[in-house]
Amino acid sequence: MARTRHVIAVDVGGTETKAALVTGTPTGVRPVTQRRRPTRPTGDAVVEDVTALVDELRASADHPVDAVGLVVPGIVDEAAGVGVYSANLGWRDHPFRKEVEAATGLPTAFGHDVRAGGLAELRQGNARGLANAVIVPIGTGIAAALVLDGRVSSAPGEVGHVDVGHGDPCGCGQTGCVEARASSAAIARRYTKRTNRQVNGAAEVARLLASGDTDAADVWREAVDALARGILLVAALLGPEAVVLGGGLALAGPLLTDPLGARLDELTTFQRRPELRLAALGDEAGCLGAALLAIDMLEER
Amino acid sequence: MARTRHVIAVDVGGTETKAALVTGTPTGVRPVTQRRRPTRPTGDAVVEDVTALVDELRASADHPVDAVGLVVPGIVDEAAGVGVYSANLGWRDHPFRKEVEAATGLPTAFGHDVRAGGLAELRQGNARGLANAVIVPIGTGIAAALVLDGRVSSAPGEVGHVDVGHGDPCGCGQTGCVEARASSAAIARRYTKRTNRQVNGAAEVARLLASGDTDAADVWREAVDALARGILLVAALLGPEAVVLGGGLALAGPLLTDPLGARLDELTTFQRRPELRLAALGDEAGCLGAALLAIDMLEER
Repeated sequence: MARTRHVIAVDVGGTETKAALVTGTPTGVRPVTQRRRPTRPTGDAVVEDVTALVDELRASADHPVDAVGLVVPGIVDEAAGVGVYSANLGWRDHPFRKEVEAATGLPTAFGHDVRAGGLAELRQGNARGLANAVIVPIGTGIAAALVLDGRVSSAPGEVGHVDVGHGDPCGCGQTGCVEARASSAAIARRYTKRTNRQVNGAAEVARLLASGDTDAADVWREAVDALARGILLVAALLGPEAVVLGGGLALAGPLLTDPLGARLDELTTFQRRPELRLAALGDEAGCLGAALLAIDMLEER
Repeated sequence: MARTRHVIAVDVGGTETKAALVTGTPTGVRPVTQRRRPTRPTGDAVVEDVTALVDELRASADHPVDAVGLVVPGIVDEAAGVGVYSANLGWRDHPFRKEVEAATGLPTAFGHDVRAGGLAELRQGNARGLANAVIVPIGTGIAAALVLDGRVSSAPGEVGHVDVGHGDPCGCGQTGCVEARASSAAIARRYTKRTNRQVNGAAEVARLLASGDTDAADVWREAVDALARGILLVAALLGPEAVVLGGGLALAGPLLTDPLGARLDELTTFQRRPELRLAALGDEAGCLGAALLAIDMLEER
């Protein structure tokens, strides 16, 4: 039986940083106290803000804190503890783990936000018990954590940037990317482009769809098709038992999973058609995953 | 230091079955005596022939034989020891491991031919030392073994059947598959269709290409483009350090890797552009991998 640990988890997002005092074991954690603040760009500012959040939460704790778990977006080298690249937040090869350990005096686990969120869904969310799964948060962008043979892989999992043949340009420099049609941002943008009507994100397009708006239906159908084709590629290569959909778009629930499942049924030939599930942990997944990384690190010592 | 083991390895191919008495450790093996015979379809016939090969090689051995390693094509459940499905060889849910253990009295490791070949390239071939790699044998079909975080994944790795957008139908029921343009069989078939001239496989198309035949150049270019697009999808999802090309088509050497590398350079945007390598172990890879599976099984006991 693993010991109960007390750690501070920090999930640095593109716009907001979430931090929590978390208690638990490798099989499950729960937040005790939470803090949120806007993310300031540059690696130095992030280390400063993370340190301040750790100090604040540590002061509020009833128990001694055992470790820090920190996750960031972009390209991450987990083993080295380095944030390799983030275009949005403006760092390149920033040694986050070393700097946070020095500033807080606490052992620090370091990881990638999406992969950490996938770890949390695997241990205590809707991927629990699966040996092979793909956890796909869909928001401004589309990313994925790949669970292979029971473990979260360090693979990039850029399912948002595979070419599914629709030909539209993507910010990444390719054409045909899943993200260019199926991200929340793309759905809202494409609806506005088509109708000249501003919408409050993909959630409003979903509401318009439900109310019978045919433009919304077209944009949604094209998003679902792109997503289905991306999932099909993943199914051919990795054969997941389930695809766990998360992020803002997954709040659409059956409005997303019903047509997506139907499109997958149409497109599947030899592949194992993965079950579709909705993520359980919402926007807390990254923070809980950061805590699990910290607890795993302590267990391994 | 691991003990030297003596095992019998059998690689059941679509047309030919290769068997060998093999000696070595988990880090490297070598064949001592080899046998080949045509593969007879049905699971029962395969078990009969595997048993006969094991008996024959065992009788020829100077040492007691410690175990059998058996690998087969199709859909394989390694953990259960079951050949789930092979259309060509006519089995469904055949319990190979149990039957070969009963017939030979030897502990038997059971695996998938392509993944076993990948394991051999990883341990003692041209993927040695890589944490993330994809080993792609290209012959009648195109398959892949995925090395992730230093281990051969149990994932299906069907890189031959991802849709790269060319629109041609594939035997699998999809359109646009890499295999429909880039397998050795597809290259020969497409050249013949275009010119009405019979060729002796993709090797002859390669020779025609080298001699300036423009039809061969077109067919080859389309094959290279499909393969590059397939590799790019794998790069986005899995980020391999290297792609190790094997099978008959890899015998074309730089005639394949030079244009493929150039096309990858053109298509790559955000992905890590994997190094291209040629496989080291030729058509022995599956058999050596089967031996490694047997030795790993003995080590784990």
